[in-house]
Amino acid sequence: MIKTDILIIGAGPTGLFAVFEAGLLKLKCHLIDALPQQGGQCSELYPKKPIYDIPAYPEILAGDLTHKLMEQCKQFEPGFTLGERAEIIEKQEDGSFIVTTNKGTKHQAPVVAIAGGLGSFEPRKPLIHNIAHFEDKGVEYMIKEPEMYRNKKVVIAGGGDSALDWSIYLSDIASEVTLIHRRNEFRGHLDSVEKVQELKNAGKINLITPAEVIGIVGDKKVKAVVVKQAQHIEKEFEIECDHFIPLFGLSPKLGPIANWGLEIEKNAIKVNNALDYQTNIPGIYAIGDVNTYPGKLKLILCGFHEATLMCQSAYQIINPGKRFVLKYTTVSGVDGFDGTRKEAPKAVVKKIE
Amino acid sequence: MIKTDILIIGAGPTGLFAVFEAGLLKLKCHLIDALPQQGGQCSELYPKKPIYDIPAYPEILAGDLTHKLMEQCKQFEPGFTLGERAEIIEKQEDGSFIVTTNKGTKHQAPVVAIAGGLGSFEPRKPLIHNIAHFEDKGVEYMIKEPEMYRNKKVVIAGGGDSALDWSIYLSDIASEVTLIHRRNEFRGHLDSVEKVQELKNAGKINLITPAEVIGIVGDKKVKAVVVKQAQHIEKEFEIECDHFIPLFGLSPKLGPIANWGLEIEKNAIKVNNALDYQTNIPGIYAIGDVNTYPGKLKLILCGFHEATLMCQSAYQIINPGKRFVLKYTTVSGVDGFDGTRKEAPKAVVKKIE
Ligand SMILES: Cc1cc2nc3c(=O)[nH]c(=O)nc-3n(C[C@H](O)[C@H](O)[C@H](O)COP(=O)(O)OP(=O)(O)OC[C@H]3O[C@@H](n4cnc5c(N)ncnc54)[C@H](O)[C@@H]3O)c2cc1C
Ligand SMILES: Cc1cc2nc3c(=O)[nH]c(=O)nc-3n(C[C@H](O)[C@H](O)[C@H](O)COP(=O)(O)OP(=O)(O)OC[C@H]3O[C@@H](n4cnc5c(N)ncnc54)[C@H](O)[C@@H]3O)c2cc1C
Repeated sequence: MIKTDILIIGAGPTGLFAVFEAGLLKLKCHLIDALPQQGGQCSELYPKKPIYDIPAYPEILAGDLTHKLMEQCKQFEPGFTLGERAEIIEKQEDGSFIVTTNKGTKHQAPVVAIAGGLGSFEPRKPLIHNIAHFEDKGVEYMIKEPEMYRNKKVVIAGGGDSALDWSIYLSDIASEVTLIHRRNEFRGHLDSVEKVQELKNAGKINLITPAEVIGIVGDKKVKAVVVKQAQHIEKEFEIECDHFIPLFGLSPKLGPIANWGLEIEKNAIKVNNALDYQTNIPGIYAIGDVNTYPGKLKLILCGFHEATLMCQSAYQIINPGKRFVLKYTTVSGVDGFDGTRKEAPKAVVKKIE
Repeated sequence: MIKTDILIIGAGPTGLFAVFEAGLLKLKCHLIDALPQQGGQCSELYPKKPIYDIPAYPEILAGDLTHKLMEQCKQFEPGFTLGERAEIIEKQEDGSFIVTTNKGTKHQAPVVAIAGGLGSFEPRKPLIHNIAHFEDKGVEYMIKEPEMYRNKKVVIAGGGDSALDWSIYLSDIASEVTLIHRRNEFRGHLDSVEKVQELKNAGKINLITPAEVIGIVGDKKVKAVVVKQAQHIEKEFEIECDHFIPLFGLSPKLGPIANWGLEIEKNAIKVNNALDYQTNIPGIYAIGDVNTYPGKLKLILCGFHEATLMCQSAYQIINPGKRFVLKYTTVSGVDGFDGTRKEAPKAVVKKIE
């Protein structure tokens, strides 16, 4: 059982900034995310694109935003359960909550903050009749640990940035990378497309287009995929491999959270925006894209504000009767849970003679 | 008469970010500030100190924050009335407001956003009986245009960062700089104190401590100040000068805004935080440190959120009946009023062969 002060569901920008604000109040956070990495939509959907409306950043790449937020909160040592979906919530007699993921990991906390964005990112799966049988036995829809592909034969399917970028990345690690796409054209950043062309010319990526994987061969594990190529005449053949990675994009689904007894409106969770972004269940908050209230804007900067007010309110639940006096970080500095301290250089009082 | 869409009172971080958010909605802003520069508390009280809780900035100097916000909004060409205090507001028959400053400058807009922080920054004045007579006739409490001191004789009084930093700055511009402080010790950044010591040693700053200016001599303009020095025996003498600049700090006062008929609570303006941060007077909003509501935190990041929601609501007043559909900056880009355009590089669709 993982125990923490605030259990945050969703490690997007809102969840990550909540870690920092909670830390200032000496509250510890643990985050659950269905994705294998932090950053939510920013890292999954548009890491290399610029955002122009993050306050005081005339321009910042979504991926860099994620890194900055990670850097800002790291001193508060957040825990992460990544690649798992929060599935079930149970209220305990002592008022705390236990949240269990689809993989059975259990987490307990007096406060739950749902920062789930548009929902849990779930892969779009290809229609191959026996694919479910091979999930986690050679079929992966997202890449959690690139090292597991070292010296393996890998088949990637897809025609967008993920397929391009992982083909490039794994071409250095895997013993063989085959990229299969149902069109000749790829859609992505120009430099990614060009890099794949280059690696293909150098024989480091096998490219099969236009083609589709239509079957998986194997027993306990993937041994090969069946590919159907449609050039002039249709033909089918097998490619031996250890892993088949269909990268057709992930799409967010509110999913299990919709059944937690929370008031839902327009696929989002209703909160008390006049106070602290708490939901209809005391002790459960919803912040960022996942919540709704009159005038709600699904913007990153709004999630930052909501996370901050949520933490103040959570403090009252976790420390009943105690009063927290807000201090400016500039004035009081920042004491990390890892023993680090940041503080402004003090003014000196010094004679001039 | 200066006309604009949103008239913002206060050019602190909240007011500056409001310019950007308004610009995204194609609304133009004009800002009034009592200070001669932008940045509010950040630039007046702690420009060289780090802030640690600006989202995605693990650390940023308050002065740099101001610069970044200026850079972010500059394409929306905000107008500024600086060094003047918004004094009077009058509602017109057409629903618009006219705001007049203490210097008589008039501004008209359908929407007024008060981003006045802790209030209008007003100088602490030394107790010299005839000082009021010389205001703007050689006595200045803040420096608006350093060039006006070129080749002039300047006396600065004060013992903090402003007095130190302006003495350093003007030592290059003025023909003579005298720094007077009632103690031998100065309080400020170490490097500022050391730099003044250096300039004093080099004869570029005259230092008189412990001493006080107790009188001003002149007719239409300042001709000299009377200094009382208390070393061993008290002595009084005159120093010829063109300018006397007492820099004893500026302190914020809600001031005239308190009489605008707005609901005030704890020296702040009550707003409808459940919707759009509007005050009890329709068309007048209050955002940032200047407002209050249950759970309010006087933090910069909260002002950013409030400014953003305010702009959406202001849009409805300015464009009645029109609907604004929120678009992500990443997706739609940013079109400046100055003709510039920022946009994310487009994905390509390209054949790999
Ligand atoms: C192309 C694009 C461009 C954009 N441009 C801008 C822009 O310019 N400016 C701007 O402000 N915003 C922009 N946005 C929106 C911005 O990305 C979102 O507002 C922001 O990501 C919301 O952050 P969040 O942390 O609330 O949620 P998210 O980033 O959506 O993160 C939520 C996380 O929660 C996880 N999660 C949800 N439910 C569960 C569960 N049950 N178990 C485990 N994990 C779960 C998800 O997997 C996800 O990783 C853009 C979005 C897109 C798609
Ligand atoms: C030492 C110190 C450290 C701080 N540290 C932090 C920190 O770490 N993190 C954080 O988030 N916040 C911090 N703050 C608070 C932060 O500076 C404020 O929250 C922020 O400046 C508020 O921005 P604002 O734009 O709402 O108001 P302000 O910055 O106060 O700006 C308001 C402006 O309005 C002008 N104004 C008001 N009335 C009038 C009028 N009638 N006519 C003309 N002009 C007028 C004022 O002159 C002023 O320039 C700190 C503050 C101080 C003093």
